[in-house]
Amino acid sequence: MEYLNYYSPEEWDALLRFSENQETPFLVVFTEKVRQKFENFRTSFPSSKIYYAVKANPGTPLLELLRDLGSNFDVASIHELDQLLELGVSPDRMSFGNTIKKVRHIREAYEKGVRLFVTDSEADVRHLAEAAPGSRVFFRLLMDAVTSDSDWPLSRKFGCQPRSLTDLVALAAELDLDPYGISFHVGSQQRDIQAWDAAIAKVSSLLTLLAEAGIPLRAINIGGGFPANYLIKNNNLAVYAEEINTYLQNYFGEEMPAIYLEPGRGLVGESGVLVSEVVLIARKAKTDRKRWVYTDTGVFNGLMETLGESIKYPIYTHCAGETGTVILAGPTCDSIDIMYEEYPYQLPISLAIGDRLYWLATGAYTASYSAIEFNGFPPLKTFYL
Amino acid sequence: MEYLNYYSPEEWDALLRFSENQETPFLVVFTEKVRQKFENFRTSFPSSKIYYAVKANPGTPLLELLRDLGSNFDVASIHELDQLLELGVSPDRMSFGNTIKKVRHIREAYEKGVRLFVTDSEADVRHLAEAAPGSRVFFRLLMDAVTSDSDWPLSRKFGCQPRSLTDLVALAAELDLDPYGISFHVGSQQRDIQAWDAAIAKVSSLLTLLAEAGIPLRAINIGGGFPANYLIKNNNLAVYAEEINTYLQNYFGEEMPAIYLEPGRGLVGESGVLVSEVVLIARKAKTDRKRWVYTDTGVFNGLMETLGESIKYPIYTHCAGETGTVILAGPTCDSIDIMYEEYPYQLPISLAIGDRLYWLATGAYTASYSAIEFNGFPPLKTFYL
Repeated sequence: MEYLNYYSPEEWDALLRFSENQETPFLVVFTEKVRQKFENFRTSFPSSKIYYAVKANPGTPLLELLRDLGSNFDVASIHELDQLLELGVSPDRMSFGNTIKKVRHIREAYEKGVRLFVTDSEADVRHLAEAAPGSRVFFRLLMDAVTSDSDWPLSRKFGCQPRSLTDLVALAAELDLDPYGISFHVGSQQRDIQAWDAAIAKVSSLLTLLAEAGIPLRAINIGGGFPANYLIKNNNLAVYAEEINTYLQNYFGEEMPAIYLEPGRGLVGESGVLVSEVVLIARKAKTDRKRWVYTDTGVFNGLMETLGESIKYPIYTHCAGETGTVILAGPTCDSIDIMYEEYPYQLPISLAIGDRLYWLATGAYTASYSAIEFNGFPPLKTFYL
Repeated sequence: MEYLNYYSPEEWDALLRFSENQETPFLVVFTEKVRQKFENFRTSFPSSKIYYAVKANPGTPLLELLRDLGSNFDVASIHELDQLLELGVSPDRMSFGNTIKKVRHIREAYEKGVRLFVTDSEADVRHLAEAAPGSRVFFRLLMDAVTSDSDWPLSRKFGCQPRSLTDLVALAAELDLDPYGISFHVGSQQRDIQAWDAAIAKVSSLLTLLAEAGIPLRAINIGGGFPANYLIKNNNLAVYAEEINTYLQNYFGEEMPAIYLEPGRGLVGESGVLVSEVVLIARKAKTDRKRWVYTDTGVFNGLMETLGESIKYPIYTHCAGETGTVILAGPTCDSIDIMYEEYPYQLPISLAIGDRLYWLATGAYTASYSAIEFNGFPPLKTFYL
């Protein structure tokens, strides 16, 4: 059956053995896969600093593993920061990467020892100068989402335009912050590697401009965006790394700044398998060619990123034989709790109520995004193998 | 200031006094408003049975209030059913309204005393016959979502076409269930009252057909869909009731079936005020005319229904004076955590970081829809005044 090769026979064995007596739905995360991916990132980008984007999967066993492997951490909120401190991660391994933060959270982070922040607005620079004096600061450049080939594009919510960015850098220098580098994000699940080329070119010219103005920065944060393998296949990490390293070499040569990376999905996405059960199969009329397949997992208990059918997860089932088009929907009374209606997912005709569906590569942006009690359904459970 | 009249001066007083020392974001629910609305529904539909759609807001104080007022309850899952049992609601006041349910949950509901179910597929009818023998059953008719004027339309996820429906009724009768009535839902936040006219007409002809076939049904469930007042104003409940009662009279006259109602949003929506704080205000470039206003509440901690800008909440602030267009976004690193970008929301130019925003009519589909730890942010707290 298709997709079986996403996991090794041993992993499948372990998964099936573990799952047998568990009530669906639940997520199983193979921690060993995360370890391999992390080593992969480290080998592919040997002189870069890796900051794991905690929001992708804040599960304690993953954070402990990455802590022990020597990873750094990109945090989106004071809550994630506190979670890491509790796990014994020292604050000099953290970057407060969210540009939207309350001044009291900046102060709290500073008091707890964090000295690296990302910003993109005048108000936030002033907050940093006031509440985190002398800290190193990345300035986030706005990327043009419209032309990008990212499955979960970043829109205009983050970053600022070049002219504003250089103004912010000057302001930060004036306010005795340490203007450290430029950051960007090409959009999550970015399938077009050349997006990095365009971004690095922009950053390079901005760094030159700033150096000429007497404010030499020392780092680039090339963000996340590294894809996981879903239904639509991507180049693998080695190809990404080779290309991106070439871009960096082209633009900077011997004058290479420090390079920061913030993988989230690319690091943990493929480590997870969401196990669900078919609750009901129905046709709306006798003549309907498509079946509606309702499962006990849905948009609000694990599959949030299927909104707009953005992320298309591979689905494995034990059933075999001829397939037919299905519409996949979740268990709640909400009409937007439909995972796939436009994209013609194929599942075996023999699929029956009670059969299990295995949603592959669901390690990122699933369990922690569950609603607390949408329609009364509990959040998705997670187990670590 | 606009919108102040959503709540009485006493309610505003109570809200502000209570809120003063609370850290944002949080939701305040005025239980008295729910009591008034319930009485309103009871007066407007004097001979109907009211089943509160628990999913709209499963807060314990609301459920207790409605229990004491004599309401019945529409449940979406076995979890909501258990919650009601714990509050002492007897099972004969519940309807298991979700057509997507596991057979073991049907059995559990039946064993706990529930005898009223809604269905729309052959498999589910067979499950009901097996696990809830003899129960009364509503058959849900598929409504045409395309032509409707609902802000949160129901799509084709629920219901079946007329021909299938009559087949299901016959099957249920054959399997010794009690075919009780036809249900439909015109779409949540339905602003076009005539949607009920069209639906009741369809149901009426189906009931005639079934009676002629020897299976007389005795009830109609006209669903929810009653709107709350958001930014775009609706007719009030009295107008809805007068129209709908007229439709029913026209089609049934003396042969009136039992009428069931399932208000959710229409009953509790206006009872809530979500209190948030402005975290940051920014322009992406000096020349930008629109301000980005980032608040500490967003799509994933309370404002889920702003997805696609479906529900447009009125927003009150203490600031006064000239207004300008804003883009409103939440606090997470996620790019879809933007509430309003297309619709030109106006907020005072004088609005500053740290000011509070009051999101009105947020009593339905907010707190319980919060993610457990999206980007580390905790779910929305709720207080009942």
